[in-house]
Amino acid sequence: MTVRGVRLVVAYDGTRFSGFVVQPGLRTVAGELGRAIEAMTGKAPKLRVASRTDAGVHAEAQVTAFDTESTITLHKWVTGMNRHLDDDCAVRSAEECAPGYEPRFDTTEKTYRYLLTTRDTRIPRHRFTAWHLGPQLTLPRDHPRAPLDLDAMREAARALIGTHDFRAFRSAADERENTVRSLYAVDVEELEPELVAITVRGNAFMHNMMRILVGTLVEVGRHREDVGRVAAMLGEHAERESAGPTAPAHGLTLMAMKLGR
Amino acid sequence: MTVRGVRLVVAYDGTRFSGFVVQPGLRTVAGELGRAIEAMTGKAPKLRVASRTDAGVHAEAQVTAFDTESTITLHKWVTGMNRHLDDDCAVRSAEECAPGYEPRFDTTEKTYRYLLTTRDTRIPRHRFTAWHLGPQLTLPRDHPRAPLDLDAMREAARALIGTHDFRAFRSAADERENTVRSLYAVDVEELEPELVAITVRGNAFMHNMMRILVGTLVEVGRHREDVGRVAAMLGEHAERESAGPTAPAHGLTLMAMKLGR
Repeated sequence: MTVRGVRLVVAYDGTRFSGFVVQPGLRTVAGELGRAIEAMTGKAPKLRVASRTDAGVHAEAQVTAFDTESTITLHKWVTGMNRHLDDDCAVRSAEECAPGYEPRFDTTEKTYRYLLTTRDTRIPRHRFTAWHLGPQLTLPRDHPRAPLDLDAMREAARALIGTHDFRAFRSAADERENTVRSLYAVDVEELEPELVAITVRGNAFMHNMMRILVGTLVEVGRHREDVGRVAAMLGEHAERESAGPTAPAHGLTLMAMKLGR
Repeated sequence: MTVRGVRLVVAYDGTRFSGFVVQPGLRTVAGELGRAIEAMTGKAPKLRVASRTDAGVHAEAQVTAFDTESTITLHKWVTGMNRHLDDDCAVRSAEECAPGYEPRFDTTEKTYRYLLTTRDTRIPRHRFTAWHLGPQLTLPRDHPRAPLDLDAMREAARALIGTHDFRAFRSAADERENTVRSLYAVDVEELEPELVAITVRGNAFMHNMMRILVGTLVEVGRHREDVGRVAAMLGEHAERESAGPTAPAHGLTLMAMKLGR
């Protein structure tokens, strides 16, 4: 039997998933994808993934790969798996890759987007996709910088762009030695009234790094943290406590990635 | 006891609602709002609404009113009701109005938006908010007018704007005598790749009118209906069969309305 590698681009709404990686007894993206592949081939695959996402985090273009002895065509992987998957997950495309291909080691760039809502009252249609900040109580409602000072956030964003030691921007559980990462772009834009998007493009992200970046920018935008202090959160001597809180998972979407070293 | 009228602007995600109006045994928007008001005042109100929405239809700014003997302040109606409501519904604002005020008779203009997705595979994050059309099989995939001919749809939209007899654009269940309505704007725009919005502003809409307008525009956009035939769907002799199918409810959102004659 010839073993082939298949690489999939997958989109999902993370709301009803306990994250990407398989966990016994829980509904995960890898679990559901594996179930679909098994239904098509009779064999449970081992899925390798570019970017583990936490419970509640969404993806527009996650990359995952597996090996198979099946001769199913690439087009049939897409249509067949989508028939077996629930509608909160979809295979967007399938490509051939080398057996044993590890998307994690082939990723050169990732783009994440985080949504914030600033309306006085919650926005029902965004309850699973945006962090609802609500009104800012520290500034008068009609203040030009309330409810969120986007200019201050953009100034803080400029301090974050570049190659830095981001050790203050990772969860306590992350114990990787190398904490230097490069951010190529940090954009803060109002998509529509009361809906703000923070889009970050970088070479790699540690666990919770994107959510701590967002938590920090929101502290600045709400004037609870000084813009001038953001630079001091970078570097090998910075402590986790210096950066902002971890923003909730459900506002985050893995938007895109570049493959191929 | 003095009776006061209270007018609310309400937003909701229609996914888990069996429409706006109260139906015994079903979860409806009016049922949930009434429950919240009863929890605050001890009395179940009779809610009057500007625009009945069907099951699955969403609203950004629905208007509803009720009478009460309570002296609860307008601000407390907002915060109190939002505490009692689930997070798929929110009261955005409250205003005083005359007792017996009927928002339905005070509406001079409504704006609806309908979302369409044209990606080859379904888009999980839009599964409750957009009609997934998928690829157009009648044109080659790389044809400039596939998957949806927006220019043809805009030409059809121009034929619909104005004051016409829209009797062909209403559900069989609608038996109102006067079927003349005015559309002020019909905009077709690509919000982002593979996501198209049809926004319609008009003085009033009959039952299913917006969904049949969308179904008709989609027929034109997919080249299953000729643009030139749209004008013949208008007028007192037009039959329901001449217009397109009724687009599914879940793509529709009541966006805004103007009050005050």
